Amino acid sequence: MNYCSHCGAPVTLRIPEGDRVHRHVCDNCGTIHYQNPKIVAGCVVEWEGRILLCRRAIEPRYGKWTLPAGFMENGETTAQAAARETLEEACATVVGDPTPAGEPGSVADLPLFALVNVPHIHQVHMFYRGRLHEGRFAPGEESLETALFAESDIPWPELAFRSVRFCLEAYLADRRRGSFGLHSCDLPPPPEPF
Amino acid sequence: MNYCSHCGAPVTLRIPEGDRVHRHVCDNCGTIHYQNPKIVAGCVVEWEGRILLCRRAIEPRYGKWTLPAGFMENGETTAQAAARETLEEACATVVGDPTPAGEPGSVADLPLFALVNVPHIHQVHMFYRGRLHEGRFAPGEESLETALFAESDIPWPELAFRSVRFCLEAYLADRRRGSFGLHSCDLPPPPEPF
Ligand SMILES: [Zn+2]
Ligand SMILES: [Zn+2]
Repeated sequence: MNYCSHCGAPVTLRIPEGDRVHRHVCDNCGTIHYQNPKIVAGCVVEWEGRILLCRRAIEPRYGKWTLPAGFMENGETTAQAAARETLEEACATVVGDPTPAGEPGSVADLPLFALVNVPHIHQVHMFYRGRLHEGRFAPGEESLETALFAESDIPWPELAFRSVRFCLEAYLADRRRGSFGLHSCDLPPPPEPF
Repeated sequence: MNYCSHCGAPVTLRIPEGDRVHRHVCDNCGTIHYQNPKIVAGCVVEWEGRILLCRRAIEPRYGKWTLPAGFMENGETTAQAAARETLEEACATVVGDPTPAGEPGSVADLPLFALVNVPHIHQVHMFYRGRLHEGRFAPGEESLETALFAESDIPWPELAFRSVRFCLEAYLADRRRGSFGLHSCDLPPPPEPF
């Protein structure tokens, strides 16, 4: 950040009065520009025991496999963001467990499954559990391909992100146990450059 | 947002190619300025059966009672943000359940208790459960006073935010049942102006 997004004057990086950390401050209009972590929301979507993965058509990690996930937008909930990303990246509608009447469960009721903090890149990854509606999916614009993977076929060495690996490992372990919980972890900076 | 924070040129509000929604776009340097929801992290801190609340010394909701909570910062985890806000607003150190060796539990292991989406103001509120270390607390700069409340003394009509009410109601219900879970809800816009 070089300029004030409000008035266009140059900003300076300093600790405002009463604050603890450096901020981009505009001495012209007085605005303090806070920068905050972003939420990445995604889904573990299952169909007949297999899990939906997307092969990335964009950087970073072009060509690697990921759970459908992306940045949460203003005006939506975390579960809505997870469902929207699943639709955009895999043309797939995620639903919850069926209602007593046999209707597909609502996105608002999807259970949160994993919460992964990635503080060195200012991100919080949140993964919901859901079902694939009617078994339909296809690559979205940001995916080279999409596919359903049985546990034994998960392309572990070709996964795009550590949070995806954490989430899939926890999911498969919970599924074997027959009981799903909420799994949290904090990822340190990777040992080598991204 | 009126000006590009990167180059200082005026921005325009339009849908970038390949996007779905309006963004602030800089036609001078090409930067697309995304705006994303912010995380508010806080704690339900208990000491001898009572819960720590803070009376706000700042707007919004000056003079109302709240759980210690505030905006998550870059470079920290959600639990670290919740613990830092508790320290800043109530001069209180939050710890987890004691370890087998009798040491205070780590902040990294605090359990997430409530996830409240507030999409109309682009916020996600996350509350952790913890214990008050050594029973010590005092008002921080943003608090008029701090106090421990028994269930029967919670100042329900004087609570600052709906997410705080949701969290406290769920916490007390879980405590009565003897078992804590993760509670989620999505808050609609309030019926009357804030
Ligand atoms: Zn300015
Ligand atoms: Zn620019």
